[in-house]
Amino acid sequence: MAQAQKITPRAKDFSEWYGDVITQAELADYSPVRGCMVIRPHGYRLWELMQRALDDMFKATGHRNAYFPLFIPLSFLAKEAEHVEGFAKEVAVVTHTRLRATGKPGAGGIEVDPASALEEPLVVRPTSETIIYAMFAKWIQSYRDLPLLLNQWCNVVRWEMRTRMFLRTTEFLWQEGHTAHATEAEAEEEARRMLGVYRTFQEEWMAMPVLTGRKTDSERFAGALRTYAVEALMQDNKALQAGTSHNLGQNFAKAFEVKFQTAAGGLDHVWNTSWGVTTRMIGGLIMSHGDDNGLICPPKLAPVQVAIVPIWKSDEEKAQVSAVSHQLKADLDKAGLRVELDLRDTVKPGAKYFEWEAKGVPLRLEIGPRDVAAGHTMAARRTGGKAPLKLDSIVVAVAGVLDEIQAVLFQAARERREANSVRGVTKAQFLEFMKGKGGFAYGGFCGDGACEAEIKEQTGATIRVLPDPEFRSPQAPKTCMWCGKPSVAEAVWAQAY
Amino acid sequence: MAQAQKITPRAKDFSEWYGDVITQAELADYSPVRGCMVIRPHGYRLWELMQRALDDMFKATGHRNAYFPLFIPLSFLAKEAEHVEGFAKEVAVVTHTRLRATGKPGAGGIEVDPASALEEPLVVRPTSETIIYAMFAKWIQSYRDLPLLLNQWCNVVRWEMRTRMFLRTTEFLWQEGHTAHATEAEAEEEARRMLGVYRTFQEEWMAMPVLTGRKTDSERFAGALRTYAVEALMQDNKALQAGTSHNLGQNFAKAFEVKFQTAAGGLDHVWNTSWGVTTRMIGGLIMSHGDDNGLICPPKLAPVQVAIVPIWKSDEEKAQVSAVSHQLKADLDKAGLRVELDLRDTVKPGAKYFEWEAKGVPLRLEIGPRDVAAGHTMAARRTGGKAPLKLDSIVVAVAGVLDEIQAVLFQAARERREANSVRGVTKAQFLEFMKGKGGFAYGGFCGDGACEAEIKEQTGATIRVLPDPEFRSPQAPKTCMWCGKPSVAEAVWAQAY
Repeated sequence: MAQAQKITPRAKDFSEWYGDVITQAELADYSPVRGCMVIRPHGYRLWELMQRALDDMFKATGHRNAYFPLFIPLSFLAKEAEHVEGFAKEVAVVTHTRLRATGKPGAGGIEVDPASALEEPLVVRPTSETIIYAMFAKWIQSYRDLPLLLNQWCNVVRWEMRTRMFLRTTEFLWQEGHTAHATEAEAEEEARRMLGVYRTFQEEWMAMPVLTGRKTDSERFAGALRTYAVEALMQDNKALQAGTSHNLGQNFAKAFEVKFQTAAGGLDHVWNTSWGVTTRMIGGLIMSHGDDNGLICPPKLAPVQVAIVPIWKSDEEKAQVSAVSHQLKADLDKAGLRVELDLRDTVKPGAKYFEWEAKGVPLRLEIGPRDVAAGHTMAARRTGGKAPLKLDSIVVAVAGVLDEIQAVLFQAARERREANSVRGVTKAQFLEFMKGKGGFAYGGFCGDGACEAEIKEQTGATIRVLPDPEFRSPQAPKTCMWCGKPSVAEAVWAQAY
Repeated sequence: MAQAQKITPRAKDFSEWYGDVITQAELADYSPVRGCMVIRPHGYRLWELMQRALDDMFKATGHRNAYFPLFIPLSFLAKEAEHVEGFAKEVAVVTHTRLRATGKPGAGGIEVDPASALEEPLVVRPTSETIIYAMFAKWIQSYRDLPLLLNQWCNVVRWEMRTRMFLRTTEFLWQEGHTAHATEAEAEEEARRMLGVYRTFQEEWMAMPVLTGRKTDSERFAGALRTYAVEALMQDNKALQAGTSHNLGQNFAKAFEVKFQTAAGGLDHVWNTSWGVTTRMIGGLIMSHGDDNGLICPPKLAPVQVAIVPIWKSDEEKAQVSAVSHQLKADLDKAGLRVELDLRDTVKPGAKYFEWEAKGVPLRLEIGPRDVAAGHTMAARRTGGKAPLKLDSIVVAVAGVLDEIQAVLFQAARERREANSVRGVTKAQFLEFMKGKGGFAYGGFCGDGACEAEIKEQTGATIRVLPDPEFRSPQAPKTCMWCGKPSVAEAVWAQAY
């Protein structure tokens, strides 16, 4: 059960490490379906906790949840030209609705019944703009119906060629917000507001620092006017796009005839936004904080925040430490903490430590006969360090330690990101940086897509964002770091997932 | 906005009434996708509240949530013979993964790319036994891994020919529990336990009384050893199967090689159960309690439990009642109640009443200048009756009234069911009963499927359950009410959704 030995060190092979952490923490497993994963209970609990926190934030900003069909008629997807082009190469298509017996052995004796072909094929939603805005057209008549602020939690499917657990899977879970507004300014404000919600969630809950900013046209969502993103830097210095928010302008409103009577009595198309985050965030959490012993969960999202491991040698000792441990668990439960008491007889304390560490539990409380006698428990932080905590004030102490761990994780991740960021790069520095360890490179950008394409081809790096003011360098760059033409905006490049 | 006028009376056309209630309460809408519905925010909130209550009960009984792929390879579905036969006629099948431009006008200029045909077609899950037990085979080695108690909240697809909102839709939302046990007795206990959870939820939360019992072979789940069900009687005297729980025996374990080392050192197949409830329950709630003014929500599940409607004629009055109403809402919010304060200027109080009634809000608090002066608010119950409640003790009073409404709804539904049940029927009585108003008919059953088929053909009625002891008639029937042969069990017949 010495689980930690099964985890490849990050320095040896980061990608292997990532897979090992997922396996050892029992977050997910490969499924027999190409590109699809199974999210196991420990991983799904993490997702549930993420959902709960985000959902509260969505509701606090006036959004309501709804549910739209899984299937999208082919003709709907086709209505917005750029949109269908963006997704045409990666959609699962339902074409038939019955099976029949083959009358022959092999393939389980069944096959698709050709007589059940659909008149119009149905696409399994890769995203739901088209089906949702078709409904908006039915529901919105007047400016009084605006803004319409909806969100949907669901599964989506994109037929990806290269998949990786949580980061890129054929099917994934996500939320997609969809809103309609009377003016462009309101839509822009909404797209910005939700980007801010993502940032708050990822920094305050996931302890994952992010850059915010705008995407260039080459990375813009198919059908959007403008795409904004939150971008994080993983421990291997690759960037992770952790969420996007789109100002869709009137593109979909025009394709689906979503019109409203304005306050002035005219008729106008609505302005839409959409925004989403996915189970990919779990991958971001793993690669932000994990170490060679496995997962490290930020306390606010940890499925298990505290693991209590009692230690005994005799039955008498067991009775004693069990009683105190049960009381300890009861006290922490009562305070609303997520606590496991590990009373297994068949596993030794050392193996239990490895196991809870691999699962990312931020705080382990060890309690043996001597601890009971001393009226304390030994508190081992997943982030390092071990110290006694008095049992008579344990709830306050544990809450305090968890807060500290949350803060330490965020700070460490931010420091790591800054240590792996370089500003004001020249082309030569940029080439060296991207050939080396990599990270976030800030530099001037001419705004030309051809320049972007050339950079991507030669270095694998893409513009993650044109950063928002607070992330920009003190001195605005004057020239494009690549071609030397005048710079139109500072850009942040990185190799990315 | 006199919404109630738009609802067809139940006595005139129950089916029209049902659709009107859904539309007026904004629970759901038809979608452009055949057989699929859109669940609107008010309906989805109801589902969220159902989910929350059930999920807590699942977790309290030791279950953990997980997520399995949407797609099932054809060969997996085929592994359990009865199972594939049961679902072959109603599955959506994914056969291709790309679209291409047609280069011609029409159909949006795109079509399915024939070059993207899958080697093995994928079925969109109609239920997940096959994919889940394939994973169980990977995770279960020893009796120490048992019991394995999982649940999944997800969407499923069954290609239904005749659909009706919430009751039968091509895509629907549900939960499916899947468990593995070391012994048949444990699996049986689990199947029974979860049936009990469903009953508790439906009676205590939905205020919908149910019969519990076993299904006959003709209504058994495809692949199960035994199927148990909860059955409710709607206001049109048709039965609604509101949930099922299956003892799957070792059928799937054998098909998917789910074996474990027993405590005694042998090797055995596990014993499985599966159990599920769906968004169909929303249909059951509507048809259990709704009236000619619209939806009636049991308070425990009402998206809005209390609607506050302030009444004013002058700006001065408005200022006064608004202030008191805001305080009232704040007090009720603080007590954890779900409250809406309806301050709209553009809608008159009477129209607001209709609207909140149509939406099923159990309690409306009307507050005008005279009420403020008298220190009370007029409380109108959705179940009938209006009386003042003192503002200085409003929280306790409102909580009490909501409890009463919850109890009244359950009692009324149970009395209605009993008034529409007949026991110890003869064949002649049965025929008359089923030709007339219908309802639950209790009588002896010979156990012969041929008898069941004949009854269904002639009356449209099916055996809903062989009822559990507490629902059986005091005197066990001696002969089959239809064919006169010896009775093997009492049965409950009804026409059903």
